[in-house]
Amino acid sequence: MDIFPDQDSKTVGLPPGTLVYTGDSTKAGTKITIIDYNPECLDESPIDDISKCKFFKDRNTVTWLNVDGLTDTEKLGFIGEIFGIHPLTMEDILHTDQRPKVEFFDDYIFVVMKMIYRAKKRSDIISEQVSFIIGTNFVISFQENPDEDVFEGIRERIRNNKGRIRKLGSDYLAYALMDAILDNYFIVLEREGDKIEEIEEELISDPMPRTVKRVYNVKRELLYLRKVTWPLRELISMLQKEESKLIRKDTRIYLRDLYDHIIQLLDTIETYREMTTSMLELYISNMSHKMNEIMKVLTIIATIFMPLTFVAGIYGMNFKHMPELEWYFGYPLSLLLMGGVSLGMLIYFRRKKWI
Amino acid sequence: MDIFPDQDSKTVGLPPGTLVYTGDSTKAGTKITIIDYNPECLDESPIDDISKCKFFKDRNTVTWLNVDGLTDTEKLGFIGEIFGIHPLTMEDILHTDQRPKVEFFDDYIFVVMKMIYRAKKRSDIISEQVSFIIGTNFVISFQENPDEDVFEGIRERIRNNKGRIRKLGSDYLAYALMDAILDNYFIVLEREGDKIEEIEEELISDPMPRTVKRVYNVKRELLYLRKVTWPLRELISMLQKEESKLIRKDTRIYLRDLYDHIIQLLDTIETYREMTTSMLELYISNMSHKMNEIMKVLTIIATIFMPLTFVAGIYGMNFKHMPELEWYFGYPLSLLLMGGVSLGMLIYFRRKKWI
Amino acid sequence: MDIFPDQDSKTVGLPPGTLVYTGDSTKAGTKITIIDYNPECLDESPIDDISKCKFFKDRNTVTWLNVDGLTDTEKLGFIGEIFGIHPLTMEDILHTDQRPKVEFFDDYIFVVMKMIYRAKKRSDIISEQVSFIIGTNFVISFQENPDEDVFEGIRERIRNNKGRIRKLGSDYLAYALMDAILDNYFIVLEREGDKIEEIEEELISDPMPRTVKRVYNVKRELLYLRKVTWPLRELISMLQKEESKLIRKDTRIYLRDLYDHIIQLLDTIETYREMTTSMLELYISNMSHKMNEIMKVLTIIATIFMPLTFVAGIYGMNFKHMPELEWYFGYPLSLLLMGGVSLGMLIYFRRKKWI
Amino acid sequence: MDIFPDQDSKTVGLPPGTLVYTGDSTKAGTKITIIDYNPECLDESPIDDISKCKFFKDRNTVTWLNVDGLTDTEKLGFIGEIFGIHPLTMEDILHTDQRPKVEFFDDYIFVVMKMIYRAKKRSDIISEQVSFIIGTNFVISFQENPDEDVFEGIRERIRNNKGRIRKLGSDYLAYALMDAILDNYFIVLEREGDKIEEIEEELISDPMPRTVKRVYNVKRELLYLRKVTWPLRELISMLQKEESKLIRKDTRIYLRDLYDHIIQLLDTIETYREMTTSMLELYISNMSHKMNEIMKVLTIIATIFMPLTFVAGIYGMNFKHMPELEWYFGYPLSLLLMGGVSLGMLIYFRRKKWI
Amino acid sequence: MDIFPDQDSKTVGLPPGTLVYTGDSTKAGTKITIIDYNPECLDESPIDDISKCKFFKDRNTVTWLNVDGLTDTEKLGFIGEIFGIHPLTMEDILHTDQRPKVEFFDDYIFVVMKMIYRAKKRSDIISEQVSFIIGTNFVISFQENPDEDVFEGIRERIRNNKGRIRKLGSDYLAYALMDAILDNYFIVLEREGDKIEEIEEELISDPMPRTVKRVYNVKRELLYLRKVTWPLRELISMLQKEESKLIRKDTRIYLRDLYDHIIQLLDTIETYREMTTSMLELYISNMSHKMNEIMKVLTIIATIFMPLTFVAGIYGMNFKHMPELEWYFGYPLSLLLMGGVSLGMLIYFRRKKWI
Repeated sequence: MDIFPDQDSKTVGLPPGTLVYTGDSTKAGTKITIIDYNPECLDESPIDDISKCKFFKDRNTVTWLNVDGLTDTEKLGFIGEIFGIHPLTMEDILHTDQRPKVEFFDDYIFVVMKMIYRAKKRSDIISEQVSFIIGTNFVISFQENPDEDVFEGIRERIRNNKGRIRKLGSDYLAYALMDAILDNYFIVLEREGDKIEEIEEELISDPMPRTVKRVYNVKRELLYLRKVTWPLRELISMLQKEESKLIRKDTRIYLRDLYDHIIQLLDTIETYREMTTSMLELYISNMSHKMNEIMKVLTIIATIFMPLTFVAGIYGMNFKHMPELEWYFGYPLSLLLMGGVSLGMLIYFRRKKWI
Repeated sequence: MDIFPDQDSKTVGLPPGTLVYTGDSTKAGTKITIIDYNPECLDESPIDDISKCKFFKDRNTVTWLNVDGLTDTEKLGFIGEIFGIHPLTMEDILHTDQRPKVEFFDDYIFVVMKMIYRAKKRSDIISEQVSFIIGTNFVISFQENPDEDVFEGIRERIRNNKGRIRKLGSDYLAYALMDAILDNYFIVLEREGDKIEEIEEELISDPMPRTVKRVYNVKRELLYLRKVTWPLRELISMLQKEESKLIRKDTRIYLRDLYDHIIQLLDTIETYREMTTSMLELYISNMSHKMNEIMKVLTIIATIFMPLTFVAGIYGMNFKHMPELEWYFGYPLSLLLMGGVSLGMLIYFRRKKWI
Repeated sequence: MDIFPDQDSKTVGLPPGTLVYTGDSTKAGTKITIIDYNPECLDESPIDDISKCKFFKDRNTVTWLNVDGLTDTEKLGFIGEIFGIHPLTMEDILHTDQRPKVEFFDDYIFVVMKMIYRAKKRSDIISEQVSFIIGTNFVISFQENPDEDVFEGIRERIRNNKGRIRKLGSDYLAYALMDAILDNYFIVLEREGDKIEEIEEELISDPMPRTVKRVYNVKRELLYLRKVTWPLRELISMLQKEESKLIRKDTRIYLRDLYDHIIQLLDTIETYREMTTSMLELYISNMSHKMNEIMKVLTIIATIFMPLTFVAGIYGMNFKHMPELEWYFGYPLSLLLMGGVSLGMLIYFRRKKWI
Repeated sequence: MDIFPDQDSKTVGLPPGTLVYTGDSTKAGTKITIIDYNPECLDESPIDDISKCKFFKDRNTVTWLNVDGLTDTEKLGFIGEIFGIHPLTMEDILHTDQRPKVEFFDDYIFVVMKMIYRAKKRSDIISEQVSFIIGTNFVISFQENPDEDVFEGIRERIRNNKGRIRKLGSDYLAYALMDAILDNYFIVLEREGDKIEEIEEELISDPMPRTVKRVYNVKRELLYLRKVTWPLRELISMLQKEESKLIRKDTRIYLRDLYDHIIQLLDTIETYREMTTSMLELYISNMSHKMNEIMKVLTIIATIFMPLTFVAGIYGMNFKHMPELEWYFGYPLSLLLMGGVSLGMLIYFRRKKWI
Repeated sequence: MDIFPDQDSKTVGLPPGTLVYTGDSTKAGTKITIIDYNPECLDESPIDDISKCKFFKDRNTVTWLNVDGLTDTEKLGFIGEIFGIHPLTMEDILHTDQRPKVEFFDDYIFVVMKMIYRAKKRSDIISEQVSFIIGTNFVISFQENPDEDVFEGIRERIRNNKGRIRKLGSDYLAYALMDAILDNYFIVLEREGDKIEEIEEELISDPMPRTVKRVYNVKRELLYLRKVTWPLRELISMLQKEESKLIRKDTRIYLRDLYDHIIQLLDTIETYREMTTSMLELYISNMSHKMNEIMKVLTIIATIFMPLTFVAGIYGMNFKHMPELEWYFGYPLSLLLMGGVSLGMLIYFRRKKWI
């Protein structure tokens, strides 16, 4: 969860347009695969020689070029040249702390999104930048991490010719890819909802400082989710409304659907955020009430036993002349006195509704 | 109250447009009834053979097709075909965690709303998705749960030809149905208002941690109500303003009325929300004041009896040479000393306005 | 103060347009008076036979029909017919929990406002719905409660031909009536300001839980005032801007003045609301500081006397062999020891700046 | 600081347009001075006979009529007539609790602002209404209080022909006057900044309840400043954008400058407001921490001495058969026991990091 | 960090347009350097005789005039004359507490920004006003402090003809300069993120009042950063959208990139701000929980030892007739009694889950 983006300093001072990958450069090299299809035929293969891409680009079929790993900037620069991508766009693809956005160029649409999923072990939210170049008959997708991939379902649908995907163009493919990414947002957010339910139960049955820390963590994650989801709203809205010949009218209906999904995500995030705030208030007022309960116990005990101990102290004094000490019923009388004092105190507390 | 929507994961990975019912599938099958009317005649009957719908669709009368239960996706797909409904619309009807929305198609208007009511037993808020397809001379309503229904009043009005409903078209019917749903929002919200009044009284007479939990629950429900009501504002506003030949000018006046109702609902929800916030503040400041009161009692008691016990302790020491112990008036003098100390303390507290 | 509107359930299930009065139906019947004037002549009389209204409607003079009490729905329906009022408008007039609004019809403008004033006894804010039908040469005003009336000043001005009112048309009359209602908002809000000043003083001199309850009540009333004032902003703005031949250009200048008044009301309400929030913060931090003071007293006392009592306890033990007890200066030495301990403690507290 | 405007009730019930001065009527009468200039000549004199104004109005020079004190409503009415001022404008000039605003008439522009400054003695913020009538070749300024004046600098500039003022028209004069008023806002706000710096230091070195009261006062003043500054934004924006022949294109550049100043004022006010909120949070968390420290001291003392006193109490009992009392090393052993107990406690607290 | 701007009072009362430097006037004099280039040749030299600027201005090359230090108002006035800069613009350049803004004139665009960096020693944020005059073939940059400079990288790129800078016009140069300034914002903000991470860790492991003070300081700095960053959004947006012939279409793409950077800055600032708020809540609820823990320890100790001490006190009384004292097993029985009492208390606390 890169709530603290700090890679940007890598590029401070460089002239704009320089290709530098700002992400985790320990990741393995750049792997490129191509899926080329029309309703009748399908061609899927890894690409080693990038110049081959030109052939697919010029064909009339829909071409999906998937680039996994952004460390090999030379290869990427070459792809950029072949597909006529603006240097600033290439720079944005490599600077992996972009804010999600869409940019319209004459020949292509450039889309940056964040793919999010939970780390297998610690269940942290992990994000990865995914960029799309949407052309008339091709889509190029750039992913940072070759290991994580949410597009397998779409590959299956293309291979098996399921649904409408093979019949429609590159804009529908781009929609399908973005939809697949967004589906994962729902999964991540669902877990957040589960956590909130657990915390709610904990809060009502047995609030602990751990509970507050959990609330804090959920808040932090929601903050992050909002940060990556919020720009999507404008992104999809612009895709839907901008007069671009690259987006067919039919596909706009699907994009409207995507837009509704995002609004729903944001609604839910906002609702969750307000719930966490309410939960903290509940916790603090619970703590405050508990405190009062503890103090009542202490005060009752002290208020009863302090006078008693004092009376006992009086008759423990060693004065020569203390007539009460000589009385035959001195001792039981003193006990009676003490009993009376404590009874009085108890009545007082009962009146105050403390016991 | 599905404040935690989690059904969506059912459809992750499926191609868009696949008909899958995401709601509670244990509910009984799909029941379809038709009411077909014009000012003169009325025809009301259950439908088993869906192909019969085509006959009603082509007639010049107003046809209201009510579909109860969404589990039989095959039947529903058939209805979709007959009435020419877009696959994405059918998908939205079956995905019962939609955000309320309106979509304008060439031949029909698609409206999704939430019907809300309180569970009979636990008085929780329950919501159910209701979708409308509004055509030139027909309205199709899709409900999830066949057991709950708020449309009976409208059926009565159609049967008995009460009001204007039989004289007007399908758009007025749609308005009447939406109005019936919205009426229930007021009923649900009213109960919320009652709760707030009860809690206010509890807060002033006898605040307890239970009170805070109740405030929390009301807040949660208000959050939910806002979530389902807020999108209605735009929904009705679009219905009213969009240039669609399916909505007559007369009906727009009625929609304006509906719009006013929604604004009023939102106003009230917002007011209630602010009140719950104020109530928590009141509770916490009350607790804080109570705490001070408890601490004052403890401090007064301790401050009076600790010095006294100390004095008694002094004269309880067993030193050989303690002249005071031999004095004839030693005992009464020591009592006087103690009385003086406690009197001094009492004066001190009185000055501090603690007693 | 109907912060909890609950009359609406009366109309649930009824067809829209049914005339049902949703207010307090125990109020006396409907009383109608007419004031008909032009710069030269004036005619003021109660109306029993409603059909007489038609005569005034067709005359060229300005006619002000004031309807007090809405229980007699039959009479009201008749008025509606004579003046050509839409059934939904009539319904809105009778449903007295309307949100303030304006609606433009071809022949008239429909305005709903809340008249507010303080109850004579308990100084609660009471509100009453006032509706206006503004036609070319007539204004009809509908009030719920015949006993309360803020229009007497205007009647006087009409009778005595004071100011411009007799010279101008029905739109100016409507403006004057709305202005009279709004003047009362200032009076109600002024009292709120006085309360805040009182509470501020109380907070600084002697904060009590009562103070917080008062803050809570002021907050609640401000919430209510905002709720009824806020819609007026749009209402007047629409009256001013809408292209309606019923509002002359001259009158628009007066409406702009009204608009400024409303903005000022809202400004003041918002300022007051923020002040109440600050006041609660002040109270809580005061309480918190007081608590610390109390705890300091307790801690100082306990920290001084516990060790002393312990020392006294030591020399109160009955061991056979305790050499100190035999010393001649044992007693004064023990007293010195105790004095030393308490002096040390006092120095410690002085250093911590507790005393 | 009229955060509680209550003069308005004076005018309730009066017909709109009646000239009543709602300010402090104990102030001295109305004093009028005129400065009439063009680049070549200058004429400055007090005015007794108002009809003389007509002469200046018709001349081609720039005329600045400054009216000090608004108690003499007759004189003011006369000025209004000569310069053709709308009755509602005259009313607004006299009702000194106006919200700052601008109104465009055919022949003049009407501007209402608040002049603010600090009272000499108590350093409270005092405000005074200043109205401007900006005509083609004249500016009339109305001030409430003859004693306070921020226009002296401008008079000097006119007299000495410094800067551009003598060369430009009445719109530039109006700009210069408004700029002079606004300069004082910065001075007032600067003092607020100084206070915040002082409070910050106090908060960090030695927080007291007095500190919170100071924060409260600053908050209150900032609230007030925002209330008077906020409307200026729209005011200047309208002056700048409205198509009025009274404002030359050149002057609009100066107005843009004024606009920037106001935005900066609002920015700073908002920043200060957020700082005061943070300061309260800091105070409360400080208090809360201090409380914990106090309670730790108390708990440590009590936890150490209570068991010790108890042990001493045991051996102070007077049972006949208590073998320990007879032991030769009973006393030192009991002291050792006590030492052990208190050592254990100290270790326990050290582990808990309390000491 | 000039969160308290107070230099403005220097100019109160002066006629607008007077050249007065409001910054720190102890800084050294004004140093001017020129870089003049086209794709082929480059000319870099310090300027002593300002009249030489005219020569560069009229040449067809791109001229970058960098002015370091604003104390020499005479020189600056001269530059203003040569380049035809409006007096109000000159005034804004010298008043170094401007809000960032852009102003379009016929011959040039005027941009004011804040350059921010951290002080070397105390790591405070320091800001300096930088103004740009962007003409057709020249850019003039005005900096306050000659010692700090973020433009060295750009000079290098020009000298070494790296990137596109030498090939493009003055608008691209202006973009590059603004980009260089903005890069520093990211560096400053990154440090803020680091601090938040450190504080988070401190909060979870060992919260101290120091932690809260650090949160307060971070909040303060974020407030400041928002204050200087927020206006940049509109600034760049206007540069990008305004129809000015001075900004070529190509450069607008670069400005869009700048705009994205600013949005990202603002996003991050907002996220950080919300995190600091959550952190304070976490701290306060932690403190509140700790308090409860401390009070539990105290209450347990007091509740156990007070009754025991009382029992011991009873048998320490000196009554003549106390039968228990004579019993042979009186002492062990009394010990048993005490043991029973404390055991009961422990069970009670265990049930309450306090231990």
